[in-house]
Amino acid sequence: MTTPLGPFSGRTLDELGHDLRAGRTTAGELAREALDAVAALDPALNSFTSVDADGALAAAREADRELAAGTDRGPLHGIPVGVKDLIEVAGLPATMGSRHFAGHVPGTDAAVVTRLRAAGAVIVGKTTTHEFAYGPTGDCSATGPSRNPWDPERMSGGSSGGSAAAVAAGLVPLAIGTDTGGSVRIPAALCGIAGLKPAYGAIPADGVFPLARSFDHVGVLARTAAECFLAYRVLSGRELGESHRPLRVAWLDPSPLHVCDPEVVRVASEAAGVTEKVALPREVADAFRDVYVTIQSAEAADVHAERVAAAPELFQPDVLDRIRGAMDVPAWRYVRAVAELPRLAEAAEELFEGRDVLALPTVPLTAPPLGAREAVLDGRTIAVRAALLALTCPWNVLGYPALSVPAGTAGGLPVGLQLVCRPGDEHLLAAAARG
Amino acid sequence: MTTPLGPFSGRTLDELGHDLRAGRTTAGELAREALDAVAALDPALNSFTSVDADGALAAAREADRELAAGTDRGPLHGIPVGVKDLIEVAGLPATMGSRHFAGHVPGTDAAVVTRLRAAGAVIVGKTTTHEFAYGPTGDCSATGPSRNPWDPERMSGGSSGGSAAAVAAGLVPLAIGTDTGGSVRIPAALCGIAGLKPAYGAIPADGVFPLARSFDHVGVLARTAAECFLAYRVLSGRELGESHRPLRVAWLDPSPLHVCDPEVVRVASEAAGVTEKVALPREVADAFRDVYVTIQSAEAADVHAERVAAAPELFQPDVLDRIRGAMDVPAWRYVRAVAELPRLAEAAEELFEGRDVLALPTVPLTAPPLGAREAVLDGRTIAVRAALLALTCPWNVLGYPALSVPAGTAGGLPVGLQLVCRPGDEHLLAAAARG
Repeated sequence: MTTPLGPFSGRTLDELGHDLRAGRTTAGELAREALDAVAALDPALNSFTSVDADGALAAAREADRELAAGTDRGPLHGIPVGVKDLIEVAGLPATMGSRHFAGHVPGTDAAVVTRLRAAGAVIVGKTTTHEFAYGPTGDCSATGPSRNPWDPERMSGGSSGGSAAAVAAGLVPLAIGTDTGGSVRIPAALCGIAGLKPAYGAIPADGVFPLARSFDHVGVLARTAAECFLAYRVLSGRELGESHRPLRVAWLDPSPLHVCDPEVVRVASEAAGVTEKVALPREVADAFRDVYVTIQSAEAADVHAERVAAAPELFQPDVLDRIRGAMDVPAWRYVRAVAELPRLAEAAEELFEGRDVLALPTVPLTAPPLGAREAVLDGRTIAVRAALLALTCPWNVLGYPALSVPAGTAGGLPVGLQLVCRPGDEHLLAAAARG
Repeated sequence: MTTPLGPFSGRTLDELGHDLRAGRTTAGELAREALDAVAALDPALNSFTSVDADGALAAAREADRELAAGTDRGPLHGIPVGVKDLIEVAGLPATMGSRHFAGHVPGTDAAVVTRLRAAGAVIVGKTTTHEFAYGPTGDCSATGPSRNPWDPERMSGGSSGGSAAAVAAGLVPLAIGTDTGGSVRIPAALCGIAGLKPAYGAIPADGVFPLARSFDHVGVLARTAAECFLAYRVLSGRELGESHRPLRVAWLDPSPLHVCDPEVVRVASEAAGVTEKVALPREVADAFRDVYVTIQSAEAADVHAERVAAAPELFQPDVLDRIRGAMDVPAWRYVRAVAELPRLAEAAEELFEGRDVLALPTVPLTAPPLGAREAVLDGRTIAVRAALLALTCPWNVLGYPALSVPAGTAGGLPVGLQLVCRPGDEHLLAAAARG
């Protein structure tokens, strides 16, 4: 990485928890470290849109008081957390990355924030989102682009770009994101950390500004898969099952979904280290993309129609273009896309027949420069946005749990390995991530 | 009526059943009577698009053999029936009223036809449908308009216009129709007979050419409500419950749904003979119409998109215009309409709070002349199509059982009284129809 690292770059949630309980640190100290690191290092990254020093320090003091009094709220107790600026936190600005919500301060917490507080977590501030989460690049926002700690001239990915950059830079050990087509996993991959999109609905989305309700998921970002699963258990209230038989992991050929950088595929594939290979028929892969785009567009246009009519000039131009395109999608195509869902679920079931986890790259390329809309991949010019979403969005269509873990680097930039399982098999996903 | 009446004009299904079992007639005689009546009287009505004399006589012989041998299949055993030309009957043409399906002869029976045959019914032939059931007037079809027995220069209503005209003229005692926005009840009302649209899914729609799957219902037409419920019980496999407490029927003011002919309202209201009055807020009434039109259009456009692209010239011009308009409905409006459904269901629950059955006119006017697209109603010029659908389509949106029964006449033409209940309250609907 080219940017200096913050205080949480070498410490896992487990270690922080041990240190807290052994008296080697306090929640107050952790909060202070996070706030200082954001102040010192974030100007180069723009991963935070607002910081709540008073609130964080007060929450940390309360966490310390509770621990001292013997009240232990579990693994997130006293842990500093960043929350994507698309998620409502009472009393903090929630801009959604948009001038439409400049100055908006909600009075209530989103459900995931309520759970964070109940778990004793310390909310440090809000993290940069692509405007209305409507883009996987993280570089179109009223609050400015979030930058990649590996190279601040490159995109963090998005839409949860600030959450990924903040964790990758060690400003906080954990951040909350949302993922409609890959918005947790894409920035996790581009920034070299882990990001988990759980099964649809596993972490409630109430209080999250919608992008496309059928596909909106709340997820978590941390340095490692183990930390993501720890936060997942707390925030979903679901325990992971156990399995003692050998894991069955297969490599899913990404090429029917999108052309890929061969080096990215090599790095991810080596990290996966599995021998069995499976592939989606190209026609099914195309259907996943078309169904995703159609349903996502229709639902996003529903969310924004009045804003486009009333004040189009307040949108970022890129996002306005996309919403206007989305408004033109005809209803009969949406009807047809919804009717396709059972067939796609069946195709996925076939892929998983006799297999626990599928492995594939998270994204087909490494982090492009900020503002790039085209790239050359394996000799072909491709659209960056479509490329970034291509390998992640099928699992939003299905609502399957999907995880991105760091797989190594290609050309000095991080590569993500994506691991996918069926709902209910999260323990197998966690085991596969342990390797 | 101005046209001569056929042999079934004065006989109920009950009476026919008694006569059959008492040896006063045979299924063969009933089939012969129906076939002769169609041959003699239908040229003036065009209610049948094809007749299956051989099949009907063979089925009737078998019905007679079974009865003689002591096998009694129940109340439809030996009864001649007409089946709407939108419903597949193995070996008979199924044109859907469209040149797109000229010469199409399916090899299998629709589910409702399977049930008819299992009940011993005798299928006489196929009845005229508005092209693809896409219209409530019954006068746009590749097989010509079905005509109203009360005045053959007037429309039968649609889309199950042939089924209504055939029963009203006494050609058959029973006919099967489909109802997506009123297509059973509207022609029943305009032709002065009874028509029942059961709860959504109560009679399976497999083998019925779709109009808009979310709202497509299979229903029955007969001279009286009691006969409709008799056929409903056989074809749905559901028995009617019993209730011994006083019925609670309220008049639903139709005016928020559409401007109405005051004389139609007076006749229907007198037939209802109830004192309590309820009304939908106009905003909710508007929402019912908008949600109906949006979802119906989107789903119909999905069904026909390829046909419009490949061979638009094969459609009736009116129907092509409607489908083209439907193809332009944007997806976000469909998303929004679907999201409105719970609110509309809640509004309906409120209307029914403390009430068993709601009564209102079936349509706001009497049968307009064939081809009429505008009419003057209470001094206002209105669109005939929208007017015909206005009072019936809310119950398709909700999937509630709804029945039209003859209420009298206005200006010498039939008026329908519509009775509506919640699913599960069909016995109360039947009791309300008994008066």
